[in-house]
Amino acid sequence: MLYFESDYMEGAHPEIMRRLAETNMEQTSGYGFDPYCEQAREMIKAACGVQDAAVYFAVGGTQANAAVIDALLKGWQGVLASAAGHIAGHEAGAIEHCGHKVITLAHTSGKIAAETVQAYLASYYADAAHEHMPQPGAVYISHPTEYGTLYTADELAAIHAVCKAHHIPLFVDGARLGYALAADGTDVTLPVLAKNCEVFYIGGTKAGALFGEAIVFTKPELAAHFFSVMKQHGAVLAKGRLLGIQFQTLFTGDLYRTICRRAIVTAHKLKQSFTECGFRLLMDTGTNQLFVILPNKTVKQLAKDIAFQIWEPYDSEHVVARFTTSWATTEQAVDAAAEILRRECELHAKEA
Amino acid sequence: MLYFESDYMEGAHPEIMRRLAETNMEQTSGYGFDPYCEQAREMIKAACGVQDAAVYFAVGGTQANAAVIDALLKGWQGVLASAAGHIAGHEAGAIEHCGHKVITLAHTSGKIAAETVQAYLASYYADAAHEHMPQPGAVYISHPTEYGTLYTADELAAIHAVCKAHHIPLFVDGARLGYALAADGTDVTLPVLAKNCEVFYIGGTKAGALFGEAIVFTKPELAAHFFSVMKQHGAVLAKGRLLGIQFQTLFTGDLYRTICRRAIVTAHKLKQSFTECGFRLLMDTGTNQLFVILPNKTVKQLAKDIAFQIWEPYDSEHVVARFTTSWATTEQAVDAAAEILRRECELHAKEA
Amino acid sequence: MLYFESDYMEGAHPEIMRRLAETNMEQTSGYGFDPYCEQAREMIKAACGVQDAAVYFAVGGTQANAAVIDALLKGWQGVLASAAGHIAGHEAGAIEHCGHKVITLAHTSGKIAAETVQAYLASYYADAAHEHMPQPGAVYISHPTEYGTLYTADELAAIHAVCKAHHIPLFVDGARLGYALAADGTDVTLPVLAKNCEVFYIGGTKAGALFGEAIVFTKPELAAHFFSVMKQHGAVLAKGRLLGIQFQTLFTGDLYRTICRRAIVTAHKLKQSFTECGFRLLMDTGTNQLFVILPNKTVKQLAKDIAFQIWEPYDSEHVVARFTTSWATTEQAVDAAAEILRRECELHAKEA
Amino acid sequence: MLYFESDYMEGAHPEIMRRLAETNMEQTSGYGFDPYCEQAREMIKAACGVQDAAVYFAVGGTQANAAVIDALLKGWQGVLASAAGHIAGHEAGAIEHCGHKVITLAHTSGKIAAETVQAYLASYYADAAHEHMPQPGAVYISHPTEYGTLYTADELAAIHAVCKAHHIPLFVDGARLGYALAADGTDVTLPVLAKNCEVFYIGGTKAGALFGEAIVFTKPELAAHFFSVMKQHGAVLAKGRLLGIQFQTLFTGDLYRTICRRAIVTAHKLKQSFTECGFRLLMDTGTNQLFVILPNKTVKQLAKDIAFQIWEPYDSEHVVARFTTSWATTEQAVDAAAEILRRECELHAKEA
Repeated sequence: MLYFESDYMEGAHPEIMRRLAETNMEQTSGYGFDPYCEQAREMIKAACGVQDAAVYFAVGGTQANAAVIDALLKGWQGVLASAAGHIAGHEAGAIEHCGHKVITLAHTSGKIAAETVQAYLASYYADAAHEHMPQPGAVYISHPTEYGTLYTADELAAIHAVCKAHHIPLFVDGARLGYALAADGTDVTLPVLAKNCEVFYIGGTKAGALFGEAIVFTKPELAAHFFSVMKQHGAVLAKGRLLGIQFQTLFTGDLYRTICRRAIVTAHKLKQSFTECGFRLLMDTGTNQLFVILPNKTVKQLAKDIAFQIWEPYDSEHVVARFTTSWATTEQAVDAAAEILRRECELHAKEA
Repeated sequence: MLYFESDYMEGAHPEIMRRLAETNMEQTSGYGFDPYCEQAREMIKAACGVQDAAVYFAVGGTQANAAVIDALLKGWQGVLASAAGHIAGHEAGAIEHCGHKVITLAHTSGKIAAETVQAYLASYYADAAHEHMPQPGAVYISHPTEYGTLYTADELAAIHAVCKAHHIPLFVDGARLGYALAADGTDVTLPVLAKNCEVFYIGGTKAGALFGEAIVFTKPELAAHFFSVMKQHGAVLAKGRLLGIQFQTLFTGDLYRTICRRAIVTAHKLKQSFTECGFRLLMDTGTNQLFVILPNKTVKQLAKDIAFQIWEPYDSEHVVARFTTSWATTEQAVDAAAEILRRECELHAKEA
Repeated sequence: MLYFESDYMEGAHPEIMRRLAETNMEQTSGYGFDPYCEQAREMIKAACGVQDAAVYFAVGGTQANAAVIDALLKGWQGVLASAAGHIAGHEAGAIEHCGHKVITLAHTSGKIAAETVQAYLASYYADAAHEHMPQPGAVYISHPTEYGTLYTADELAAIHAVCKAHHIPLFVDGARLGYALAADGTDVTLPVLAKNCEVFYIGGTKAGALFGEAIVFTKPELAAHFFSVMKQHGAVLAKGRLLGIQFQTLFTGDLYRTICRRAIVTAHKLKQSFTECGFRLLMDTGTNQLFVILPNKTVKQLAKDIAFQIWEPYDSEHVVARFTTSWATTEQAVDAAAEILRRECELHAKEA
Repeated sequence: MLYFESDYMEGAHPEIMRRLAETNMEQTSGYGFDPYCEQAREMIKAACGVQDAAVYFAVGGTQANAAVIDALLKGWQGVLASAAGHIAGHEAGAIEHCGHKVITLAHTSGKIAAETVQAYLASYYADAAHEHMPQPGAVYISHPTEYGTLYTADELAAIHAVCKAHHIPLFVDGARLGYALAADGTDVTLPVLAKNCEVFYIGGTKAGALFGEAIVFTKPELAAHFFSVMKQHGAVLAKGRLLGIQFQTLFTGDLYRTICRRAIVTAHKLKQSFTECGFRLLMDTGTNQLFVILPNKTVKQLAKDIAFQIWEPYDSEHVVARFTTSWATTEQAVDAAAEILRRECELHAKEA
């Protein structure tokens, strides 16, 4: 069986495992107050080019999203997000559990436009009864989006400008950020991202770490009591250093980008196999997730050898299927998948 | 420096590290739907003697406490707990964050008596205005308590009987359960515990794991939607198998009890060193935490060589200091501490 | 100035004022435990034909909605509602403040179809990852809807059947219920409504009372702890009898329906004036709210003499304007409005 | 039967009823945006001597408490309160329902001392692990307290000084404020109160109004989004003018103080009857609530003719009984009670 189901099916990059083993019996203080976390924070701040950023480590993405948004919003506020946003659909109401509404906006392949945000805010404040509606208190976007698409630096800057004009923070969910940074032709680097939002996180779980997300507040004043917020959310890891060690490793010698780049390369290869077989992609993402429009019959056939995710129905005879590569995907796996696709193609050709 | 500050200063038991490394590049489904979690669940159910228990894995204790209590309570209910309970004081209001009041009861060295619970419930329902007060919807205790003390099987059964009479579940926080099970003379085994409560958890973080708590619902119907509750709390680990592998390892060949037993032995030795020097303990706990009444001067002196926690003031000239051993504490460390104590004693003797 | 801005611009029906004055210096117990509330409850249960219903009184609609939904839902659940539902847009996130997501469905003129509910529930449970999404725990509809439209008895029964098949309660917001009951040709009587949902409320604030909504749980077991939920929501009125007296009055001699009927008659008259002038209605509601498509210029002109609400833009040259009659609207007011409209028409005609 | 059970057994002062009737058919905008609310706000600001105060009206006390505290606190904060505070015990967990812990402090007859607040804050910030505990974000006191006792101006100022030193607001629950202002010898006037806290409310429900509390933010910036908070709490009354009219009436010609003064006079008389009969008071309150220590036998006997509240057990043979007068209590009622007490006394004397 070949697995392209998700980018969190393996453990961690071997170098991370080595470092965890190496430091295993050391004794350090808990909760992130240890030298490893300290060093990882410094490395991340340097990589982002924001020397006074406040960096916190969380175990997972839903946790990071809920804690950050809860910290940013006042009680009566909601958060603006793409209707396809992870917080809108797949976190079991974690934001609402904290008392806040997720106010959804229209999107294109997962991306929201600055104009859409601006229009919502303008119409909100124009409404005489706007105080009867949750006040938009922050904007949440994902980079890459849930569809693997990418914002350009200009698009980010435009959304950020709208936020700043309304004095609300922009929060970027970077659960798969590594694959965005490593994508072809992107102009969004860590410093560009850091400059264009108030808080974002660097996803580790899906990009080489055992687990962990590094939350970067580029405006440290927004994080004044973030430790307490995290504790209240059950999001403070007792042995915090486990997160510090992992991010220290990922930010040593460009490891984070390097290993994520592999996923881009294998995704490209896989994409080519699909298109050579005549299958269409829902959209071109440039990152490690491929959304392929497949005939129901092909799905059934492929599923015998390849594990992937049925994303959504496309029409009565097709579905959108998601194939995901990761830092751990091997060339062999992609070649084997190509071979299976080719066979499937030929079968098709014969039948047609 | 010798560290007796807490029981979560090291990583994990080497056997756990070995297993994590060994399985690192395997590919499994996420969120706890993998063979390792499945096996760990079976081993835990067998160890508890409850074949239809529902077992879930959480990353940490505050997370486990909040998710379980939130799942047990209805919106208008609160949870009864010792005023010294971890949820009452040291979880940054995580329970209140979910909308529930922690209703505190008087305790003796951290333990609450069945009579105290019964008296509260009786007086609650006797009050004509009780519907103006949060309804007690569950009872929370810790075993060992926050003071390291232990319930006997009879005490647990008595509390449980009160709960059952009022149709509310008993939840036992077992963040340090390993040290309770390994204590001298305890009659509370896993099956005894499982029989005497509706839900409890087996702490891994403080007892040999890198992180992780195994939540056991002995009445599985209480856990019907617990996955969603956990997801909503940001408490579902993407690579859930990391928890399965750890608990599988801990429950192979009695490893959990064996390594915790070491902490009991070293705690005994350390206690002896303190009493030989004439220092009094606040109470005798029998587990891995020692609460020693130390003169302020001694505290200052010891702090040069030993890391420990100042628990609370005792009187103007003394404080209560907490010394914690763990599965990882070595005989050498305890011997070295004994030596330091002896020197301190002699100095004292001379001064006196 | 003529006021058609809303149906809560006046005080209460004079008979209610008389009864409040008459009973003013009587002494009764608080919180709804008084003979007036008791009698009002009995009258309402009789009118609904549900002798074992549990009836509670709340001061206002948002309060009633939030308390009921919070009582119905489990912590991990959300509520299904029309995207035009009052709870979805105009209650400042009151439902989310209680920790629950409002899951919005497509609607036609405010109404949701049984098929839409069924399709959502089917697709929710068909999704392999549905436990990552808030579980639909109740369905909320308004009758009349926020657009003044009405469900038929069959439509209600169909939605209710879907709910029952999924074991979730149906809750009907009846903030304007009086105007629904008094509408021409409706087959939804109080007993029909009561039979087709688990809980609904009879709006007083907008239909003759000073304030107040009578919440009717047709399945009393759902209300087991509703007093505590209301107290927790700050929704228990100290002098509860004020609500009892009002509903007792409204349910004496069919007063509720009789006075609401007047609003229907005046709304019909007003509608005729609009159509005679050639203005189109967005939809035909049959109740006391008219949604009229008006040219921007007309809006400006009418606003000089008539107070009404700008509902939403229609196109670049028109808006949808809402005109509301109520139990208190006089024939004179409607005649005066007709006169103003006629003048405006003639002006138009000349210009054209 | 004579009723001394509570101060909310009657309707409203006749002048309020007259004004409500008089204005009944007027048409005004909803939600507090009407001329009556505007005038009432101005009168209250003048009476408090704070021209830039922000004044809001709520229907009841629990609602006011929850909305204000929720508006004052950040997500990770709790509120400090007397353990006897209304929010701590009798509001069904309304504060916790908003996600905040009520942190209870020791009290003397309901009052907390500035030193107690200072000591808590000092010890909180001195604790190395204070970020693991809810941050104290506001202080809540009641004036009069739940035991009818009063703060002096100096005591208020002292608590306020502690709050200011820690940059947290002081909130005074004035559900019975009228009886405090009318008490003998108090030096706490409305301007004194307004100067010594950030927000307080003037209770109407228990002091002459049908219902209603006027919330006064002496620092208007704290109320920037208070309308939305109230809406979210279901605490905005549609026909807001009902509150405006009532407070306008109460603040015309010193009516509020005048009618509350009557309750003080009748309470004094009643107290005298008790002491003349040899019954002891738990404490001397000076306001409209008397807490009398009564033998169980006397309680049984009195209960035949007088309605009062059993507050709490005193010892095995006595209970503390609460007798409450109000603006509506007549001289006759107090004389009749005195007569009943005298008879009871004589009986006692004979038996002894």
